Amino acid sequence: MSSVAPSERRPYKLVSREFHPDDSIIRVGSVEFGGPRVVVIAGPCAVESQTQLLQVASSVHEVGGLVLRGGAYKPRTSPYSFQGLGMEGLRILHQARQQLGLMVVTEAVDQESLQLVAEWADMVQIGARNMQNFSLLKAVGSTKKPVLLKRGVAATIDEWLMAAEYIAAHGNPHIVLCERGIRTYEGKTRNTLDLSAIPVVKQLSHLPIIVDPSHATGHWSWVAPMARAGIAAGADGLIVEVHPNPQEALSDGPQSLTLPHFRELIESLKAVAHAVGRQV
Amino acid sequence: MSSVAPSERRPYKLVSREFHPDDSIIRVGSVEFGGPRVVVIAGPCAVESQTQLLQVASSVHEVGGLVLRGGAYKPRTSPYSFQGLGMEGLRILHQARQQLGLMVVTEAVDQESLQLVAEWADMVQIGARNMQNFSLLKAVGSTKKPVLLKRGVAATIDEWLMAAEYIAAHGNPHIVLCERGIRTYEGKTRNTLDLSAIPVVKQLSHLPIIVDPSHATGHWSWVAPMARAGIAAGADGLIVEVHPNPQEALSDGPQSLTLPHFRELIESLKAVAHAVGRQV
Amino acid sequence: MSSVAPSERRPYKLVSREFHPDDSIIRVGSVEFGGPRVVVIAGPCAVESQTQLLQVASSVHEVGGLVLRGGAYKPRTSPYSFQGLGMEGLRILHQARQQLGLMVVTEAVDQESLQLVAEWADMVQIGARNMQNFSLLKAVGSTKKPVLLKRGVAATIDEWLMAAEYIAAHGNPHIVLCERGIRTYEGKTRNTLDLSAIPVVKQLSHLPIIVDPSHATGHWSWVAPMARAGIAAGADGLIVEVHPNPQEALSDGPQSLTLPHFRELIESLKAVAHAVGRQV
Amino acid sequence: MSSVAPSERRPYKLVSREFHPDDSIIRVGSVEFGGPRVVVIAGPCAVESQTQLLQVASSVHEVGGLVLRGGAYKPRTSPYSFQGLGMEGLRILHQARQQLGLMVVTEAVDQESLQLVAEWADMVQIGARNMQNFSLLKAVGSTKKPVLLKRGVAATIDEWLMAAEYIAAHGNPHIVLCERGIRTYEGKTRNTLDLSAIPVVKQLSHLPIIVDPSHATGHWSWVAPMARAGIAAGADGLIVEVHPNPQEALSDGPQSLTLPHFRELIESLKAVAHAVGRQV
Repeated sequence: MSSVAPSERRPYKLVSREFHPDDSIIRVGSVEFGGPRVVVIAGPCAVESQTQLLQVASSVHEVGGLVLRGGAYKPRTSPYSFQGLGMEGLRILHQARQQLGLMVVTEAVDQESLQLVAEWADMVQIGARNMQNFSLLKAVGSTKKPVLLKRGVAATIDEWLMAAEYIAAHGNPHIVLCERGIRTYEGKTRNTLDLSAIPVVKQLSHLPIIVDPSHATGHWSWVAPMARAGIAAGADGLIVEVHPNPQEALSDGPQSLTLPHFRELIESLKAVAHAVGRQV
Repeated sequence: MSSVAPSERRPYKLVSREFHPDDSIIRVGSVEFGGPRVVVIAGPCAVESQTQLLQVASSVHEVGGLVLRGGAYKPRTSPYSFQGLGMEGLRILHQARQQLGLMVVTEAVDQESLQLVAEWADMVQIGARNMQNFSLLKAVGSTKKPVLLKRGVAATIDEWLMAAEYIAAHGNPHIVLCERGIRTYEGKTRNTLDLSAIPVVKQLSHLPIIVDPSHATGHWSWVAPMARAGIAAGADGLIVEVHPNPQEALSDGPQSLTLPHFRELIESLKAVAHAVGRQV
Repeated sequence: MSSVAPSERRPYKLVSREFHPDDSIIRVGSVEFGGPRVVVIAGPCAVESQTQLLQVASSVHEVGGLVLRGGAYKPRTSPYSFQGLGMEGLRILHQARQQLGLMVVTEAVDQESLQLVAEWADMVQIGARNMQNFSLLKAVGSTKKPVLLKRGVAATIDEWLMAAEYIAAHGNPHIVLCERGIRTYEGKTRNTLDLSAIPVVKQLSHLPIIVDPSHATGHWSWVAPMARAGIAAGADGLIVEVHPNPQEALSDGPQSLTLPHFRELIESLKAVAHAVGRQV
Repeated sequence: MSSVAPSERRPYKLVSREFHPDDSIIRVGSVEFGGPRVVVIAGPCAVESQTQLLQVASSVHEVGGLVLRGGAYKPRTSPYSFQGLGMEGLRILHQARQQLGLMVVTEAVDQESLQLVAEWADMVQIGARNMQNFSLLKAVGSTKKPVLLKRGVAATIDEWLMAAEYIAAHGNPHIVLCERGIRTYEGKTRNTLDLSAIPVVKQLSHLPIIVDPSHATGHWSWVAPMARAGIAAGADGLIVEVHPNPQEALSDGPQSLTLPHFRELIESLKAVAHAVGRQV
C-alpha cells in the first residue's frame, strides 16, 4: 500500500486527477477504455447455457462488439433465485472467447470466484453490492487484472473513487468505473441513472468511466435513449444486457435488448459518438 | 374540470399518451416545443438590471436563440436573499422582447404575479417549489397561457404529470414539462438530473419535455455535457442560465455560463441534435 | 422584515436558539405547545360531514384532548380527488369548537383560504406541499395567528427552519413545527418519519416541535409505536388522524385510528410521557 | 438450503412471521434478545488497546451491561484509515470477556475473519456494507453462531429480511436484526434512523430487532433521545458507542458517549422501557 497520506480534502490520491493529470487508458487485450473509441460491452445478465451464450456472442461479434459480458456468479437478493452456473459458466464464456476472439468480463463475488475469474476471463467485474467489500477490493488489487468497478447503488462519488483507491493502493491501477444507477425515491425506473457522475468523475479522476443503462432503467425500451445520453455526456463506453429471447431469461429479462434492438442501438450510437468527437 | 374519471392505474387522463396518442406541439409565438427543432431557452437566473438583461438577451438572439428566461419573482430559501425586481423586472424583460423579437418566459409565484406575468410575458413558469401549489395550478389553468411546469425537487413522475393534469383539467392544455434535477443523497451536484424521466414521460404523456442542466448540476462546467446528454436522451429543449459576469450574479452565479461558453454550447448541441434526427 | 442580516453559517436568525436561548411556548387558547404537557391534536384527515366530525370531536374531548384537526381545504395529488368542503368545513369545525370547547387547527392553501381559516379557526396549518410557498408564508406571517408548519416531504431541516424564518420575519413568532415523514427510497411506509429531527431542531431552534405519525407511516397499526417513539425522542406533541369508520373515509382511511384505538394510544402515551418527565 | 419455494408476494420464508408466528428469542450465553429485557450492547467503535477496552468494558459491566462491542476488523471507506487490530483485537476482547463475564460481539468482514470471530467471540456482527455480501452470509449461515445483521445503508426492509433469509436458509436461525440509519438527502445527521422499521419488521418477521443510534445520528448529543425513542418504538435492544476519551478515538469519536453520559443514558432508559412493559 502507498505510504503517501492523501490530504483530508481530496481523500483519494492514486485515482485522482491531481496525481495523474492525463486520462488513463485501460487496455483489455486490444480493447482500450478511455481512448477515442467508445467501448460497447454486451451480453446476457447470466450465462444460462452454451447455446444461449453463443447466440448472443455471435451477435455481439457481428455488429463489431469486442467485449462480451455474462454472469457466472450471480449475487441475487433472494437465496432462492438462480445463483449462476459458476465454473461451468466461466467455461462457456471462455469457449465463446476462443471461438470469436471477444474479450470477456464477468463478476467475481468472493476470493474463490475471483481466482477463477482472473484465470478464465480478461476483466474482473466487481458488482454494486460488493463495492465496499474491502477484502475483495484488496484481493482484486493483488491480481493486476483489469477491473470493472460498478458504483454501489447508494454510494457517493467519493466513496466510489475511494473503493477504486483501495484497488489501486493494493497494486492494481487497471480500473474502469461503471455508473449503473443510484437508489432514489423515484419508482418508475429500477434506479436513477446518474449521468452527471460522468463529468464529475472526469474532473476528479483520470480513470475511464462507462455506463450501464440496462440495470439503471430496468426496462429495455429506455435503454437506447439512455445509452445515447451516456455517450453524449462523455462516457467512455457502455455495458448493455442482450438476450436472444428476453422473455425466457433466468434473470433481468425485462431490461434485456433483443438482438435486433441491439443492432439498431449500435447504429444510432455511431452518430452520437461522432457528434462528440468519438467513434463506436 | 373534466367529468371523466381516470382509471386507478393511469391516474392522469388529459395529459396521458392514451388520451392523445400523438406528440403535442406547444406554440409560444413562432416557437414550437415538441417539433423537430430543439428549443433553447436562455437567460440569467434573475433579472438584475436593464443593462445585464439586454447584454444576455443580445447574446441569446445573436446565436439564434428564440426564448429568453429571467426571474422577476424569485422564490428564495431565505427571506433575507434577493427576492427579484418584481414588476420592474417584467418591464425590463418586455423591453428586451420588443427590441429583439424574443419570446419571454418568467416565473409566477402567486395569483398576483401570475396575472402580471400572463399579461407581460409569453410563457408562465411554475417553479419546482410550487409544483404542488394546487391553487396556483388551477389559476394557471384558467389563463390559457403556455406554461413551463418544472418538476418538484422530490416529485415522482406520476405526481408531476398529475400537476400537469390540474392545469389541463382547468382548461389549459398548453403545457411544457421541465426536468430540473431531483433530490438524492449525492452531494457533488446540487441535484441529480434524472434524464431517464425523458423517455419515461414520452411513453406516458404526449407533452413536450425540456431539461434544465444549470439548476440540476449547480456548476457551469457540468452544464454542457448534461445539455448534450439531455438532447441525446430525446428532450425537446433546454433551459440554461447565462450571465455576462457570473461572479457578480445576485443568484446562482456558479452555475451560469458566460456568453462565450454559451455560444460554444450551442455549436456542440447542433451536432448532437443532428445525430438524433433533430435541429437546434 | 428584520434588517439584521443572519450569518452565512446560521442562516436563520429569529427562529434560532442563539437568538432566543430559552424554549418558546406557543399558546393556542389555553393550550401550550412547548411546555411540560405533551399536546395531542386529533381528528379526521378531512371534514366530511357534521355527523362524522362531531363523533370524532366528542371522542377527542372525552379522552382529554384539547385540539381538533380536520381539513376543510385539502391539497390532493389528483384534481379528481375530493378537495374538501371548504367554507362549509370551516363552519362544521367551528361548531364542534363551540360545542365542546376544543381548539381547532386546519390547513390554509392560499390567500383566500388563509383569511377564512384565520377568522374561523384557532391555528393555521401550512401543509408539507406549501412549506416553500413563500407568498403564503409571508401572508401567514402577517396574520399573527399561531401556525403549525409542516416539514416539506423532501425539505432539509435548514430549509424548514428557513420557512419558519419567513413567517417570523414577517411578524409572526407563534410557530409550531411538525415533522411528518420525509421521502426516501423505502416503500413499506408512506414516508420515513425522521425522529432525529426532534433533537436536531431542539438544538438549533427554540420553537416547539410535534410529530405526525399518521401521514409518515401511512398505516394505522404503526401509528401508536411511532407516536410513543416521538414523545420519547422529546417531541412537544402529536397530530394523529382519527376516524369513526376508517374504511369509509374519503381520504387517508388506512392510516386513521378508530376511536377505541385512539383511546388506547392516549393511555399508553401517558406512561411514556411520564418516563421523559412530561405529561399528556 | 431449504427446498420450499417462497411465494412471490412474501419472498422470505424462514424469517417470516407466517412461518413462525411467535417472537423468536435469540440466546447469546445468558443474554436473551427478544425477551422482556431490553439488551444494551456497548463499547468502543474500534478496539484500540487493552487499556482502552478494559476501561470501557468495566464501565459497561458496572452499569449492568451484559454485552460488549468493539471492532477488531474495521471496514473503512478509505484504505488509508485505521483498519483495526485484527487478531490482536480479538484477544483483547476475549480477555475482557473472561475477566468481567461479558458476552462479546464483533464484526467479521470475510471468510478468514469470520472463522476467527466465530472462535473467539460470542456473536458475529455482519456490518451494513456487507449486508448483501452473499458469500459471507452463506458462510455465517454455516457457523451456527448468533449473528447481529445490520441493515445496509440503503437497503429496503425486504432486502434486509432477505439477507437474513440467506443466513437462515444456510442453517443458522440465530439472527438479531439491527437498524442503524439509512441514507437520505438530509445531511444534519450522518444517516436517518428509520425507527418505523421496528414495527414494520415486527409485523413481517419473528426475529428480534435492535437499534444503533450512534452510527445513525453521528453525534453523541443525539444518541440518548434516539435510544429512548427506539425502545419506545418497540426495539429489543440497543448498540451504542462508548469511549473513555472520545476526542482521542481512532474512529467515530464524535458519536461516542463518554462513560458518565453512558451511565446517565442507562438510567433514563429504565423509565422508558418500563413505560412500554419492558426492563433494561
